[in-house]
Amino acid sequence: MKVDEFGLIRRLTGRVPGTAADVRIGIGDDAAAVAFPAGTDVLVSTDTMVGGRHFLPATMGMADIGYKAAVASISDIAAMGGEPRHVLVALGVSQEVGPDELDRVYDGIGDACRAFACAVVGGDVVATDGPLFVNTTVLGWVEAGRAIRRGGAQPGDVVFLTGEVGSAEAGLRDLLQPEMTAVVHPADRADVRQAHQRPTPQVAAGRIFAAEGATSCDDISDGLASELNEIADASGVRIRVDERRIPISTAARNIARQRGEDPLEYAWYGGEDYQLVGTASPFVFARILARCESIGVKVAQIGRVEAGDGVVADRLAGGIDIVLPRGYNHFPTDA
Amino acid sequence: MKVDEFGLIRRLTGRVPGTAADVRIGIGDDAAAVAFPAGTDVLVSTDTMVGGRHFLPATMGMADIGYKAAVASISDIAAMGGEPRHVLVALGVSQEVGPDELDRVYDGIGDACRAFACAVVGGDVVATDGPLFVNTTVLGWVEAGRAIRRGGAQPGDVVFLTGEVGSAEAGLRDLLQPEMTAVVHPADRADVRQAHQRPTPQVAAGRIFAAEGATSCDDISDGLASELNEIADASGVRIRVDERRIPISTAARNIARQRGEDPLEYAWYGGEDYQLVGTASPFVFARILARCESIGVKVAQIGRVEAGDGVVADRLAGGIDIVLPRGYNHFPTDA
Repeated sequence: MKVDEFGLIRRLTGRVPGTAADVRIGIGDDAAAVAFPAGTDVLVSTDTMVGGRHFLPATMGMADIGYKAAVASISDIAAMGGEPRHVLVALGVSQEVGPDELDRVYDGIGDACRAFACAVVGGDVVATDGPLFVNTTVLGWVEAGRAIRRGGAQPGDVVFLTGEVGSAEAGLRDLLQPEMTAVVHPADRADVRQAHQRPTPQVAAGRIFAAEGATSCDDISDGLASELNEIADASGVRIRVDERRIPISTAARNIARQRGEDPLEYAWYGGEDYQLVGTASPFVFARILARCESIGVKVAQIGRVEAGDGVVADRLAGGIDIVLPRGYNHFPTDA
Repeated sequence: MKVDEFGLIRRLTGRVPGTAADVRIGIGDDAAAVAFPAGTDVLVSTDTMVGGRHFLPATMGMADIGYKAAVASISDIAAMGGEPRHVLVALGVSQEVGPDELDRVYDGIGDACRAFACAVVGGDVVATDGPLFVNTTVLGWVEAGRAIRRGGAQPGDVVFLTGEVGSAEAGLRDLLQPEMTAVVHPADRADVRQAHQRPTPQVAAGRIFAAEGATSCDDISDGLASELNEIADASGVRIRVDERRIPISTAARNIARQRGEDPLEYAWYGGEDYQLVGTASPFVFARILARCESIGVKVAQIGRVEAGDGVVADRLAGGIDIVLPRGYNHFPTDA
């Protein structure tokens, strides 16, 4: 790449929403200045995706990379029950990546920001001799003291889940080995690929969970097994899941069947669905269910919180097992 | 590296300050939740350093890399007149980097956070096949509407500078070619190396500039020439600098003399001094001068704002020249 850095940043930031009523100073100064509503806490999360590790040319186009990097951080704000507002982007760019490809990355970031009413208020583009990396930081807000933590689950609480899980993993496998699902319906293929490349964070549902008083919440970036173990550990409780109640899309089931795999494995360990999993008292859960239904978001009870520790599953095939948190881990101990 | 990611993050974050009165939820949940004072705007800036581009094994130890990554973002908050509060760190780690070296990076981040009363509230560690990268995002606050922009300089304003410039560039050159300064005093060498490896952002001065109403401010990351051109462009004014008034440290002058170089070149184009350069009316400047003196921070008038455009210098050797913004640029047009 041989372009002027300042010129490049102007070119890229022209492709994303940069202003909003609460943005006092956006891109172009030393720092952004933003105004949050009175009586709120500021939420902030950062997430990094690296070429060859989090995405491959075969699985993600440049625009998908930008979109997913942004929604991964937006989803963290959703998991706290917050309203995402502002995005900062740090790009590490190798020689092989040209300005047109960076345009596509920013187009994807722009798609995500428009979908979730966020403004891009900061950025940094640096050269690297290594693979492309995209770091996104998202700021948001939640009513003061109302952020939903992982550690509040209580015995007797309902364990619930938005939408369906397993699709993102089915999509990844299908993208890597399309020949294995030669006779699958094109709509199923499109569904699961979309779930992998353009996942939808559950911002509106998270806002309802915070308003109604869910006791814990996590977004599913690393798989249901990993996220539920985090909630169980942080809360000092046992989470018991009924496998028959885990909602898995028809498309994911069809892909799994073609591949001779168990779609429940996708759900437990696949990750990247960016659905929300959480806990609430039965009374609060009833209110959550009604409010989510009214906005067209499916929420399902998948289990119960009990005294004890860890995650256990009533298996579809019968019997009860401990579910260990072997989700995605960038540095596996046994690699 | 073969360590568990969650275990690694716990190990690293144990090395840095993680709590503060305004941190409601720190590291360990989906996002951090922080409370800012009423009547403030939130400032946020992100900065990325990449191995082989922003640092080399010969110039920066692992702890220096962490320290400098943190202060680069802290300095951006200082340049807006704000109070830095919270730091998020995203690390990209290659196979060759072991846990002990990451400990050192976090030790450096911890040093910076303790020096400037910041808490680390978020982090992300990812694997990369490329060089080490360190991204830092800093949140801070400033009284609502008081952030100092680049674009407010007015003809008649004083142009001023904190501390001394040129030392960081002298330090970098000395680190890269120590044989060229064989007879320099060890104290001078230590001074300029410290300036390169452990620069001090001017947070307290920035707070005074905001309180008193400076009309513009920038931190010197890319060199005086580049920063002053940014202020001139953003403000639609000409900035006229008297070279005789640019404060350059004795140590930097001594290094430059040994190397047969012009210390003014370091000052104009070297960058990374993280001093603040700004503008204010003569009346406001007098107040700034007095208040900075009372806290032991040197501030010098180096020029004037005039009608026109660009940056011009009254040369030490006589004559007037236009000063172009050829500071550090990651993607030079003529590379």
